[in-house]
Amino acid sequence: MWQLHCFPLCPFSRKVRLALAEKGIQFELQRENPWEGTDAFYALNPAGRTPVLREPDKRITLIDSQAICEYLEETVDKSPLILGTAAGRAEIRRLVALFDEQFFDEVTHPMLNERMKKRLVLRSPPDSKTLREAMRLAHEHLDYIDWLIDNRRWLAGAQMSLADFAAAAQISVADYLGGIDWSGHEEAHAWYRVMKSRPSFRPLLNEKMEGIPVPAGYADPNS
Amino acid sequence: MWQLHCFPLCPFSRKVRLALAEKGIQFELQRENPWEGTDAFYALNPAGRTPVLREPDKRITLIDSQAICEYLEETVDKSPLILGTAAGRAEIRRLVALFDEQFFDEVTHPMLNERMKKRLVLRSPPDSKTLREAMRLAHEHLDYIDWLIDNRRWLAGAQMSLADFAAAAQISVADYLGGIDWSGHEEAHAWYRVMKSRPSFRPLLNEKMEGIPVPAGYADPNS
Repeated sequence: MWQLHCFPLCPFSRKVRLALAEKGIQFELQRENPWEGTDAFYALNPAGRTPVLREPDKRITLIDSQAICEYLEETVDKSPLILGTAAGRAEIRRLVALFDEQFFDEVTHPMLNERMKKRLVLRSPPDSKTLREAMRLAHEHLDYIDWLIDNRRWLAGAQMSLADFAAAAQISVADYLGGIDWSGHEEAHAWYRVMKSRPSFRPLLNEKMEGIPVPAGYADPNS
Repeated sequence: MWQLHCFPLCPFSRKVRLALAEKGIQFELQRENPWEGTDAFYALNPAGRTPVLREPDKRITLIDSQAICEYLEETVDKSPLILGTAAGRAEIRRLVALFDEQFFDEVTHPMLNERMKKRLVLRSPPDSKTLREAMRLAHEHLDYIDWLIDNRRWLAGAQMSLADFAAAAQISVADYLGGIDWSGHEEAHAWYRVMKSRPSFRPLLNEKMEGIPVPAGYADPNS
């Protein structure tokens, strides 16, 4: 069976978990703590990052969330997530990169540093200025989602795609850490509620990160 | 004709330029300065980043270097760069991400900040501690290339691929900015000399960034 090396609040592992579940692929989780960087994990991935997806019996090791999603797309017929014409697929990949890179750099990564790493590893208080700036930038990204959803049924066009799952994966981690304020973002909020109600999302939303309390409404598709 | 919005030292634009040239696609350059962030450029790409590849007559706008390369791969027969089996393609994409993300974050980006942005925009001296750390991490990446080339003909396997061009694009920018020391990296150096000697690489190496002198040997395939 496939084994996914990850931790509960890794947004890139969440993207892969959603893609695996949408495609109906069975997998089990292997816990890695990003701050530990064990030799065994570096032997698996020299970059030292989650996610890593392995099939030990078939001796397949896949690294990097986007490389993994492209592999699943190329090898599994069910539920295409990078779909449509070449231009449509480019639009999906543009938005995946926007959330994987820019949203992560500006929102998810500072939230993870301030509210996870400092609490669990560094044992120091979060920096309120960094948190405020991350939340300000989150509003800009939610504005952009509002605009997309005003113009399209799903983020990348007429059909649900990997862009929706990449965005929802980042937002869900920021939301767990208290970084998302939906006020003024009705379109984005309605879209995210639909994402939360998907069966593929339930296992993620029901999972807890030890030592970090789950905020009210986080796992509720109606909230 | 395709128009590529970029600046001479953008490593992601260099990756796209190499892919375009290898595939024999004609294009012209449109200069964007990353520190200007003009309204016109943000209207083109809300993320405000180079490269953007456009075909105005066909109304195609492609954003994000990897989305662009995947599009070229899907639409142009000549010179496949993401090639082989699904597992082989995953390995190519893993290495592309390693250089686009980790090498960029650890080496190219700090070098660009210290030796380009501070010189041309901020008018402040570079921070020597940041430069030393970037060069130390560059050695770790070159060690990894040495190891790959010890085990494979090209970075991702038996054939030249986008992994080689992504790595060479990042290295060429760091090299322009004085961040690459080849001593102790014979295998990586031999591989990079071969990359430099490709016709697709010549226009990049002959281009100058105003205000930043080209170091000796930078453009010489024998050096």
